[in-house]
Amino acid sequence: MRILVTGGAGFVGSNLSERLLQEGHSVTVFDDLSAGSVKFLRACEEFERFRFVLGDLLEQAAIEDAMSGHEAVFHLAANSDIEQGRLQSDRDFRLGTIATFNVLDAMRVTGVRQLVFSSSSVIYGEPSVMPTPEAYGPLFPISLYGASKLACEGLISAFAHNYAIQSWIFRFANICGKHGTHGAIVDFIRKLHADPTRLEVLGDGRQAKPNLHVSECVGGMIYGWEHSHDQVNYFNLGCDGATSTDAIAAFVIEALGLSDVKIVHTGGARGWPGDVSQVRLDCAKLSTLGWVAKMTSDQAVARACRELATELLDQDD
Amino acid sequence: MRILVTGGAGFVGSNLSERLLQEGHSVTVFDDLSAGSVKFLRACEEFERFRFVLGDLLEQAAIEDAMSGHEAVFHLAANSDIEQGRLQSDRDFRLGTIATFNVLDAMRVTGVRQLVFSSSSVIYGEPSVMPTPEAYGPLFPISLYGASKLACEGLISAFAHNYAIQSWIFRFANICGKHGTHGAIVDFIRKLHADPTRLEVLGDGRQAKPNLHVSECVGGMIYGWEHSHDQVNYFNLGCDGATSTDAIAAFVIEALGLSDVKIVHTGGARGWPGDVSQVRLDCAKLSTLGWVAKMTSDQAVARACRELATELLDQDD
Repeated sequence: MRILVTGGAGFVGSNLSERLLQEGHSVTVFDDLSAGSVKFLRACEEFERFRFVLGDLLEQAAIEDAMSGHEAVFHLAANSDIEQGRLQSDRDFRLGTIATFNVLDAMRVTGVRQLVFSSSSVIYGEPSVMPTPEAYGPLFPISLYGASKLACEGLISAFAHNYAIQSWIFRFANICGKHGTHGAIVDFIRKLHADPTRLEVLGDGRQAKPNLHVSECVGGMIYGWEHSHDQVNYFNLGCDGATSTDAIAAFVIEALGLSDVKIVHTGGARGWPGDVSQVRLDCAKLSTLGWVAKMTSDQAVARACRELATELLDQDD
Repeated sequence: MRILVTGGAGFVGSNLSERLLQEGHSVTVFDDLSAGSVKFLRACEEFERFRFVLGDLLEQAAIEDAMSGHEAVFHLAANSDIEQGRLQSDRDFRLGTIATFNVLDAMRVTGVRQLVFSSSSVIYGEPSVMPTPEAYGPLFPISLYGASKLACEGLISAFAHNYAIQSWIFRFANICGKHGTHGAIVDFIRKLHADPTRLEVLGDGRQAKPNLHVSECVGGMIYGWEHSHDQVNYFNLGCDGATSTDAIAAFVIEALGLSDVKIVHTGGARGWPGDVSQVRLDCAKLSTLGWVAKMTSDQAVARACRELATELLDQDD
């Protein structure tokens, strides 16, 4: 199939593009390289079926041009910089909500009929039911990033109904692994590289979320896309268990071969305003369909620490 | 209190502004008059505490200027033209979602800390539970209007959490009554005025929704705003029962004193693509707080037919 991957030079997008190519699809990556990097696309460039388009989703003509002739869109582009998302109140709105509207409207115009979307468990806000199933309500996200993901889901549902665009929504747990550009593991490796004796941990360190390895994340997305057939398909995409921020710190320290690191907590139950401190996802819907993550959250974090320590420290040196 | 009402020259907005003035508040109406009319503000103009600002919510500077110095915002502006919302795929997105982002961001900048918002039962899409309670999930709206209302709720929740904006969300049933500008009653009166022998009814006529009279709608909003104190307060706002489109046609025919009108159905379960054909709202949350609609859905429709027949036919002649 001819597939356009928005944000395809980013963390999950580059892993996904590589997998889609390995499975025989043709892939066009559409990315503005604001968060992603062409170096993440080295494995993709081995394939003749791969193409890269430098472009901005806020330019409607550019996305329409790039999309024309494809059969499916995997839309992964979004703001991934939480800090900037807090400083600029319109950042998630522009890079998430408006960009997604533009993708959907380009699909309407160009006649592309399949959309796979990376949503997030943040749409649940701070749910009263954990593990949280897909049918949970009410949906009151506490971050601008969460508000954007919820807005995108609503747009996808309306476009699916009105313009015959079949869609697959995956509500991600924390995703970790190679090509990571943000999040606790990346943050901790960078901090420890600068000062191996001391590590600042945001919040009280007890925030805990399921961490899914990116290799399983892209596998789960492709499996769900191939095996569900409703007009709007939606799944939690996570794994068993959850890993606390303190535990992630310990995995990073171990992967770097350090010891006697002084952990300093910034305090408070949240890592930052808008952070959901406890996440547990009920993934029964996707497992009933036949897919489960093989790695536990701790196993995924341990592997991601090794991958990212190599990747980030090689590039820093 | 000094209150800004966006869309205050529109259907619900003009009724609300009048009530807020009667209750002693100062009211500034901000409206672009695209759907509303200054003639709906005649009763408001009797009050010295009333002011009208002609302005567009897509112009961020204009809404910030108008908002400054107010203590609360009742945000009612939205696209109310369903037909145009279908023809222009970005209409609800611009006039609903982007406009609401601008209102919230103006509140952040100007320090206004209370927002009351007119959401809609359309956020529930086609729910599997009826009557539908506020905690229902999942939320997959089937219209672009519904997608916009859901996006607005998410934005409100995120701004409430991050910028200390307390908010009250009311998910409206069908609202009917004086100053109505759209919907089945207005549509039927206009059609029968043009041809009193024949009435085209969209769908199969069996679509049925609770109809709340606008006088009760604004009363319920003000009651909920005054009596609930969470950071994000949210309520279904409707009434007992539901009135079918065929029954609305019969009420209109009676109000106009007509007989022997030939009813012609366009067919299909929906009035239009994206129309939710059956709506029943569980309003226990607001009734537990002490407010219930006094009129049934049928009583509200009958009264609205009399009001609108007078209003619309006087203006047509």
